[in-house]
Amino acid sequence: MADDPAAMASACATAMWAEDRASQALRMRIIDIAPGRAVLEMTVRPEMTNGHGIGHGGFTFALADSAFAFACNTYNRRTAAYRCDIHYLGAVREGDLLVAEAVERQRTGRNGIYDVTVRSGDTVVAEFRGTSREIGGALM
Amino acid sequence: MADDPAAMASACATAMWAEDRASQALRMRIIDIAPGRAVLEMTVRPEMTNGHGIGHGGFTFALADSAFAFACNTYNRRTAAYRCDIHYLGAVREGDLLVAEAVERQRTGRNGIYDVTVRSGDTVVAEFRGTSREIGGALM
Amino acid sequence: MADDPAAMASACATAMWAEDRASQALRMRIIDIAPGRAVLEMTVRPEMTNGHGIGHGGFTFALADSAFAFACNTYNRRTAAYRCDIHYLGAVREGDLLVAEAVERQRTGRNGIYDVTVRSGDTVVAEFRGTSREIGGALM
Amino acid sequence: MADDPAAMASACATAMWAEDRASQALRMRIIDIAPGRAVLEMTVRPEMTNGHGIGHGGFTFALADSAFAFACNTYNRRTAAYRCDIHYLGAVREGDLLVAEAVERQRTGRNGIYDVTVRSGDTVVAEFRGTSREIGGALM
Repeated sequence: MADDPAAMASACATAMWAEDRASQALRMRIIDIAPGRAVLEMTVRPEMTNGHGIGHGGFTFALADSAFAFACNTYNRRTAAYRCDIHYLGAVREGDLLVAEAVERQRTGRNGIYDVTVRSGDTVVAEFRGTSREIGGALM
Repeated sequence: MADDPAAMASACATAMWAEDRASQALRMRIIDIAPGRAVLEMTVRPEMTNGHGIGHGGFTFALADSAFAFACNTYNRRTAAYRCDIHYLGAVREGDLLVAEAVERQRTGRNGIYDVTVRSGDTVVAEFRGTSREIGGALM
Repeated sequence: MADDPAAMASACATAMWAEDRASQALRMRIIDIAPGRAVLEMTVRPEMTNGHGIGHGGFTFALADSAFAFACNTYNRRTAAYRCDIHYLGAVREGDLLVAEAVERQRTGRNGIYDVTVRSGDTVVAEFRGTSREIGGALM
Repeated sequence: MADDPAAMASACATAMWAEDRASQALRMRIIDIAPGRAVLEMTVRPEMTNGHGIGHGGFTFALADSAFAFACNTYNRRTAAYRCDIHYLGAVREGDLLVAEAVERQRTGRNGIYDVTVRSGDTVVAEFRGTSREIGGALM
């Protein structure tokens, strides 16, 4: 499988998902996985809304963060988020289907930078950038 | 109440909390509120753990984000997060009681900067910085 | 010229450059301009090195910041940086020719997000993300 | 000197300054040094102004970045900036005396987080946060 990066990426995602109770509990779904890339989606449920009647940013962040985690863990090297930032660009409402697309921007040594765009339909609702660091060990 | 900033801050938090289904569903608790300041806590439940067997960063972020939201909404001016970043400094585990303390760093015109420190016991597990912008209207 | 975005972008850059004593003093050069895009270069001079014998991050930042400024001011709407971040990915040395390429990632209402990659030869030495806001008025 | 953290911090700053051609060329001055802390000042010269007739953000950043570098190098462990962000909060003009105060927020293992506030008189013109990493070796 080390010879087939796409198969490796898929296998890593399957292994990660099995343990990822958080992403499961938020009812995220993995739409696409490739080396350095992941697309996840999640529907905004009523209990994800905040005091202004719109989606709590924490859940938009959680979706982006999971997409980032799946993208940076496609090489069978256990990798953790070190630092993340998010810009909120549009309001999210109950019932919206959010799609987060994570792509690798840089990967040098044990460090990586990943950009995640979160969309609701055609509207970009958030831009996220995450910094990852390999923490040692394999996923499988 | 406009003459009593502390009472105003408390009343804003009560009004926010009543609508904030997300923070309620995550079983956060407000520990302290003052003008430009909020302390919230949350216990890490099993469904908040991720594929590495540790707390999913999205929930640590959500707690910090809620503390930030309560802190920046203590003036009865409806204020939203515009941008946030988080540094993860230590692992969070199931059962940990996380405490997020948000303090105002700057507030100029309609914009604010808030720093949030998240601790588990005496250990700082995350440092968060949020940028807020007043979006018009009052909370009450 | 409003009908020709490329000509508008060039004219904006010419107008900006004439007033931009800082970028001139640092001997930056504009390599390419297009709507939402700018490429600038600068050679690392001895007085840009720091206490570790390598390029002071402030000058790498300044190049990225200028590329960002030229890219977000290609629409003849006076636009200022509001917030920037930079990741340093590789060391810069005296004599290096740095090339910063700024591209627009989002532009909604008066706000924009621009990503700038700084290279020395084929090596990426920094990734920069800037947030801009229109401040009113035209450049020309 | 290892027994006297204040003396160590001063000696580190002296050693750093001697090599730091960039901070010298920008005519920065060190005002105060203590373990994990540094205060630097710089006057905004004509060649530091940009295309909007105000101080180019790159020089405000450079001052903050130098304050950060001096603060994180007060332990005689060679430490480099890994990532920085800056919020611009007020305009800087030719002739302004800028004062940057860097304080340590976290230092765990080889990593640190430093907050830098840049003021012009009583006005905060920028808030900066830097992440540092020890790169091995001593300063002296």
